[in-house]
Amino acid sequence: MLTNPRSDRVKSVASLARRSTRTRTGRILIEGPQGVREAVRLAPDDVVDLYTTPAAADRYESIITAAREKGVYVHEASDEVLAAMCDATTPQGLVAVSTWAPATFEEIITDRPRLLVFLTHVRDPGNLGTVIRAADAAGADAVLISDESVDVTSPKVVRSTAGSIHHLPIATGLPVLETIGRLRDEGIRTWAADGSGSVLVDDADLDGAHAWVMGNEAWGLTPETLHACDGAIRVPIYGLAESLNLAMASTVCLYTSARVQRSSATAKG
Amino acid sequence: MLTNPRSDRVKSVASLARRSTRTRTGRILIEGPQGVREAVRLAPDDVVDLYTTPAAADRYESIITAAREKGVYVHEASDEVLAAMCDATTPQGLVAVSTWAPATFEEIITDRPRLLVFLTHVRDPGNLGTVIRAADAAGADAVLISDESVDVTSPKVVRSTAGSIHHLPIATGLPVLETIGRLRDEGIRTWAADGSGSVLVDDADLDGAHAWVMGNEAWGLTPETLHACDGAIRVPIYGLAESLNLAMASTVCLYTSARVQRSSATAKG
Repeated sequence: MLTNPRSDRVKSVASLARRSTRTRTGRILIEGPQGVREAVRLAPDDVVDLYTTPAAADRYESIITAAREKGVYVHEASDEVLAAMCDATTPQGLVAVSTWAPATFEEIITDRPRLLVFLTHVRDPGNLGTVIRAADAAGADAVLISDESVDVTSPKVVRSTAGSIHHLPIATGLPVLETIGRLRDEGIRTWAADGSGSVLVDDADLDGAHAWVMGNEAWGLTPETLHACDGAIRVPIYGLAESLNLAMASTVCLYTSARVQRSSATAKG
Repeated sequence: MLTNPRSDRVKSVASLARRSTRTRTGRILIEGPQGVREAVRLAPDDVVDLYTTPAAADRYESIITAAREKGVYVHEASDEVLAAMCDATTPQGLVAVSTWAPATFEEIITDRPRLLVFLTHVRDPGNLGTVIRAADAAGADAVLISDESVDVTSPKVVRSTAGSIHHLPIATGLPVLETIGRLRDEGIRTWAADGSGSVLVDDADLDGAHAWVMGNEAWGLTPETLHACDGAIRVPIYGLAESLNLAMASTVCLYTSARVQRSSATAKG
C-alpha cells in the first residue's frame, strides 16, 4: 500500500493539476467513482493507473473488479496519499490517471456528424463539463470547443463530465469564425443559441445536420459570431426568469434536436 | 459609508448565513448583481437593505437607481464590510437583505396549478437553486420541496436561483408520500422522473395538470415514492452517458411539459 504522500509517484500524479503537465504528458486526472467507473467501462486501455483507499476498494468493489479484469493496474493507497494526489476536496477515495487526446475537426467531420455543439469562450469548468455530459446524453456526435475557453482536461471539467469525456470526440482550441465557416462548407448548419433569436427552439429547422453555437456564460455570443451563424434560435422563457444558464440552455437545445432528428428518422425509416 | 467590518450591523447581516437566524427573522441574504437586480425588479418591498461598494455602485448603476426609485434603502460600504457580510467569495460588491417566506401547499393549490415540480431529498444547494430557476423559466406554477432537503434560504441556493426565488411560490418541508397523496386528491397527476420509467418523456401524457417528482441527486427516488406516483417517466439517454444530473433532467422534463401544455392550449384556443 502507498502511504507516503511526499513520494515521487504522488507528486507526479498531483502535477496533473497543472495544464502544462497534462499537455506535455497527454495524461489527465479522473477523480471520484463516477468518472473512474466510466473510464474503466469504456476506455480501460487509456487508464494508466487506478488508486484506491482500502475503504473505497470495499465500497466500489465492482469498479475495482472490472478494472482488474480489464488489466488496469490498481494500487491501494492511504487517505493521505489520495488527498495529496487530488484537486477535489472529496474524491471519495478513488482516482485514476488516464491518457486523453482531443479529436481534430477533420476527424469529427469525416464521421458525417448530424448533431454537434460548439462552445465558444466558455469559462466555467462546471458548465463546460455539464454541457459535454448533456451532449453525450442527447446523442450528439461530438463537442467542439473554441479557443479562449477553459481547458477541457482540468480536473474540475473532467469531474463534471461524469465520464462523458471518454464517450464522444471533443475538439479544442478552434477559432470561432473560421470554424463556423468550415461547418458551413461541410453542409452543417450553425444555429446560434441566443436570447435575441426570433425563432423559438420548438419551431426551428433541426432536421438536418447542424451545430448549436453557444456563447460565454456571462456575455453570450459576440455580434460577429451571431452574424456568422445561419440563424439565431431562442429557448423560450415562459416565467419571470431572466435567462437559463449555459448548461440548461444547451440541454434544452440538444434534446430538442435529438427529438426532432429521431422522430424524423422514424417517420422516414 | 460603512467601513467597520466588526460593527453590529455587519454582524447582523452576516448572521443570516445561519439557518436559525433566517428562520427567526424571516430574512435572507441575496448576494451578487443578478439576484439583487431581480429582487429590486420584482419584490422591492421585500428588500430591507441594499449594500454596495462604491465600485459596484458605478458598475451596477441601473440596479442602484432602480432600487432608490423604488424606495429601497441603499447603503455604501467598504470592500471589507461587504466581504464580512457575505458567504460568497465574490459577491461582486452587491448584497441585499430581503424578507422571504415560503408558500403553503394550500396557497399553491388554490391557484389551480397546471405544472409543478416536487423535489424530494435534494441535498446540493446548487442543484436546488438551478431547478428553481428552470421551473421559473419553463413557466411552472410553483416549486414543492420535501422535508430532509437542503434549506432553500441558504445563500448558495439563493445565488443559484439567480432571482427566481422571488418569482414563483415555493413550499418547503413537505412530507413526500403525504404530499403525493394530496396532489392526487386535487386531481394533479404525479410523474416520477426516473431512469427505470418505461415511458419516455416525449411520449408521456403531459397535457393535464401534473407534478414532476424528482429524487435525490445521488440515489434517486425511494421505492415507496416511485410506487406512490401515478407513473415513472424516463428522459432518454441516446449516447453513452450513464445519466443526466438532477438539474438537467428537471430542465428537460419541465420544458417538455411546457411545450405540450402550450401547444395543446393553442390547439384548443
